[in-house]
Amino acid sequence: MSYIRNNVEDMNGYIPGYQPEEEGWVKLNQNENPYPPSPRVLDAIRNELGSLKCYPETSSALVRKEAAKLYGIAPEQILVTNGSDEMLRILLESCVSPGDEVVAFYPSYTYYRTLAAMQGAYFRLIDFSDDWGLPEKLGVEDAKVVFLPNPNAPSGTLFSEGDIAKLCGIVLDGIVVVDEAYGDFAQVSAIQMLKDYPNLVVTRTFSKSYSLAGLRLGLGFASQELIRQFDKVRDFYDVDRLAQVGALAALQDQDYFRSNLQKVINTRSRLTKELSALGVEVIPSQANFVLAKFTNPTAKDVYQQLRERKILVRYFETPRLEDCLRISIGTDEETDKLISAIASILAD
Amino acid sequence: MSYIRNNVEDMNGYIPGYQPEEEGWVKLNQNENPYPPSPRVLDAIRNELGSLKCYPETSSALVRKEAAKLYGIAPEQILVTNGSDEMLRILLESCVSPGDEVVAFYPSYTYYRTLAAMQGAYFRLIDFSDDWGLPEKLGVEDAKVVFLPNPNAPSGTLFSEGDIAKLCGIVLDGIVVVDEAYGDFAQVSAIQMLKDYPNLVVTRTFSKSYSLAGLRLGLGFASQELIRQFDKVRDFYDVDRLAQVGALAALQDQDYFRSNLQKVINTRSRLTKELSALGVEVIPSQANFVLAKFTNPTAKDVYQQLRERKILVRYFETPRLEDCLRISIGTDEETDKLISAIASILAD
Repeated sequence: MSYIRNNVEDMNGYIPGYQPEEEGWVKLNQNENPYPPSPRVLDAIRNELGSLKCYPETSSALVRKEAAKLYGIAPEQILVTNGSDEMLRILLESCVSPGDEVVAFYPSYTYYRTLAAMQGAYFRLIDFSDDWGLPEKLGVEDAKVVFLPNPNAPSGTLFSEGDIAKLCGIVLDGIVVVDEAYGDFAQVSAIQMLKDYPNLVVTRTFSKSYSLAGLRLGLGFASQELIRQFDKVRDFYDVDRLAQVGALAALQDQDYFRSNLQKVINTRSRLTKELSALGVEVIPSQANFVLAKFTNPTAKDVYQQLRERKILVRYFETPRLEDCLRISIGTDEETDKLISAIASILAD
Repeated sequence: MSYIRNNVEDMNGYIPGYQPEEEGWVKLNQNENPYPPSPRVLDAIRNELGSLKCYPETSSALVRKEAAKLYGIAPEQILVTNGSDEMLRILLESCVSPGDEVVAFYPSYTYYRTLAAMQGAYFRLIDFSDDWGLPEKLGVEDAKVVFLPNPNAPSGTLFSEGDIAKLCGIVLDGIVVVDEAYGDFAQVSAIQMLKDYPNLVVTRTFSKSYSLAGLRLGLGFASQELIRQFDKVRDFYDVDRLAQVGALAALQDQDYFRSNLQKVINTRSRLTKELSALGVEVIPSQANFVLAKFTNPTAKDVYQQLRERKILVRYFETPRLEDCLRISIGTDEETDKLISAIASILAD
């Protein structure tokens, strides 16, 4: 078809985790938070319903101000976006011309490939080392953008400030994106490194730790100059009125946030222990999921048998992951069901 | 700065209409609907608040199904987006490579230029004829995308099916976008022309006729094949849960919609008549605004004096528009205030 760019015709769209239509599933396949958002978020949204006929404020000024306070950084270094996926797209649109090199590590978030394809970029995957670290030889000198999720998904493993600094030093003419979608669960952030690395961009989301996957909210952090450029590429009414007041209320209710976060972290410890007790190998995770290894029966079998019991986890049929399942941290009750299902499957 | 693409560094961001922070303004500068959305929209949003921790359904399937019924077209020919601005961006990202020609007419929606700049396209403006029609000589044979708002903003004038068919025939290797942001107020649509023109794309928004500027919702209509390609470029969770249920409820409440629409159309007639009675030249409008010509005092003076009276209208300091004001259709009460303010300004 002559109307469509070749890079778009050739690319595949991203395929997100399965979403069942009926009720009654234990849904541990999309790393959603098992707990609802703060009641203050819902109140704020209800109070905003009378204003829907008017356009939103275009820069999400109040959210940026609140995030600035929370993260100890200037509001001019922050962009609020329609999910952090939009932030990632804006970044690539701002920095990547057709043919430029975009690098991600493997295995990690597969959407990076889709984003690179949209720009007609040359996309390169570099394998993580055996212990999920950066490989010795990086060879990313010419990259325009390098993606590093921290903690990484689906391994749940963490990179050090030294790793990030090293990458920023090597990728001199390009951007290093530290994707902190799961950063809160590790209680780390590279935001404070921004003052030392002008080519660093940090992205965060409200989908996981703030329980707002359904509202679509992300944050981007970078130098003022980079943010000023990204802002021009942003759809100028990208964040709607309800999302703006919801984000503000979520950031303001840090007590609720921290208590929720602690519950997820506690359940993560418990799940890791109980799976290990069943003989399942689990990589110690810093995120809101664990990567668990199954050999007999195979991971694919366990996935299928869990699905028959109406428990959804994520199975990736790709190298290094084909004997693993990524399991999101659920409520205590969901975790009970999961553990007893796995115990029964393994005992069969 | 080496990190940013030249086309992005060189471009200016879009500047939307002024949004006052305080209450008490008569706000007729952004073509917002003066009436609230259907109460069923607000109920649907309230009922969805319990699901915010989970991701939205990625394809907005229920909205597409309802829109398909309403417009008599297949759901596979529809895309739901985060405002119609997102639909326009997706289209350019799918079709336009750096250096490709993108055409818009002048004067019209200025965001087309920003969208073209994002893609590094060569952007060309062609003047409308004196009576706001298409010029005799179009010279758009090589365009990859041509934008035609119908009705046009800020003139409020309408193009015929013949105009659209002519454009689609000339722009053989490119897309003709009929931007129907204001289409409901003219009670016309090019959607039924899609079956005859494979290079036609129609866009619509919920911001104007459905009173949902604050919720960000747009629709794109095209051939199944084009929609399939656009869908790959869409942020796959672009439309949040509240927007999806809101859109569905809005489409389902056609009685409310039609009664609201009629009120705006009636006030448009009244405003046109009363401005004419004051000696102000008004172009007969098919949209939810009128373009009114002022000479003594100048449009800029009238704009300023209205602003001092806390009435906001839109003034564009650009050729062909510098003696005009674009005035959105407000409530009857707002229209009373506007008319009496203009009468008093003209009498001074």
